Amino acid sequence: MQDIELINIKELILSDNQNLAEEIRGRLTENRVFMLNVMASPGAGKTSMIVAAIRRLKRKYRIAVIEGDIDSMVDSQKIIDEGVVAIQIQTGGDCHLDAGMIQPALGKIDLEQYDLIFIENIGNLVCPAEFDTGSHKRMMILSVPEGDDKILKYPLMFSVSDALVVNKIDANSLFDFDTDRLRDRAAVLNPNMPIFEASCKTGEGIEKWCDWLEGEIAQAF
Amino acid sequence: MQDIELINIKELILSDNQNLAEEIRGRLTENRVFMLNVMASPGAGKTSMIVAAIRRLKRKYRIAVIEGDIDSMVDSQKIIDEGVVAIQIQTGGDCHLDAGMIQPALGKIDLEQYDLIFIENIGNLVCPAEFDTGSHKRMMILSVPEGDDKILKYPLMFSVSDALVVNKIDANSLFDFDTDRLRDRAAVLNPNMPIFEASCKTGEGIEKWCDWLEGEIAQAF
Repeated sequence: MQDIELINIKELILSDNQNLAEEIRGRLTENRVFMLNVMASPGAGKTSMIVAAIRRLKRKYRIAVIEGDIDSMVDSQKIIDEGVVAIQIQTGGDCHLDAGMIQPALGKIDLEQYDLIFIENIGNLVCPAEFDTGSHKRMMILSVPEGDDKILKYPLMFSVSDALVVNKIDANSLFDFDTDRLRDRAAVLNPNMPIFEASCKTGEGIEKWCDWLEGEIAQAF
Repeated sequence: MQDIELINIKELILSDNQNLAEEIRGRLTENRVFMLNVMASPGAGKTSMIVAAIRRLKRKYRIAVIEGDIDSMVDSQKIIDEGVVAIQIQTGGDCHLDAGMIQPALGKIDLEQYDLIFIENIGNLVCPAEFDTGSHKRMMILSVPEGDDKILKYPLMFSVSDALVVNKIDANSLFDFDTDRLRDRAAVLNPNMPIFEASCKTGEGIEKWCDWLEGEIAQAF
């Protein structure tokens, strides 16, 4: 009897994706363009956080944003309103961005004209964590109203992220969100991940995570 | 030249899932057990909303809860604390529940002993919308901090839901959430979907959506 050869489609997809992601990252690095993949739940504040960073950093870096969205252009409009280029990917129904979607998006711009690219991933704490987009670093945002227990439920996302921004801390008084409990759990799962507390509404904490981002850019090249 | 035969794996999966879902629904109906699939983003209040309904309805219906979760049992514990049976599905890394996961979960209980089963789906506004679990009805929760524009970004979820509960209305003053705008958009996308405004924290609005659920149960059999 012959051995049965199993084809693990998911592994094949992930491995192809990984190769393409490495290629993208190499090309970006050659061009000294830093790319940050921003991931979060729907409504956690991805667009607002990117807009806050744009306002702080656009005099220093030439910025573009790749917007992943299933079926609308509302986020891209907010980016364009800041005077920054937005490249919209409409995934139709996919729940994450992968390297195969980022490649044609990057083909739309002249890399020599940019220093910093943000990817706003699809609002989802599950699948985006599995796919390397070719970014240099990955950041996740967790908003206070979502609760501090999300790290127990979506451990992969918290494991693969290079930084965590806790957003909407202006709403702390209304929600039972325990930052110390989150920090304790993160210390076990991903001890090297810096955690920033911020509010896009009040501006609190934005400077600190932008400082982290600038540090990462400086180290990358 | 021969025609190339395309095998659409996603369509195959969805069609197999649909058949199994119909089978599950048939078996539940025979046993006069009503099943509701509850979907939402991470942290929107799925567990809290189910717990609120349990407290209201457990004297009238014999209730069980199927908990979908990627890697923890925290939600199941909250259900058990209410004196109700919880069946935990750990999907490992999947981003939705499908009929193939619900079938073995239902195999763990004696259907004759139950009247009402809640499915708490994985926190995600994308993939759960695509998979029929075999439930009689689907409900989604959108929480105020997520923003009223989520209906533009995740239209499938808002289209397939039989009811929408807007949760955390106690936080209305802190967030720029326009319920009228949401209602106008929903009127176009899914005109027959009732929209309830509620707060699990204050208890406001819980009665109305529970009344809706009781009406659906009465109509089902």
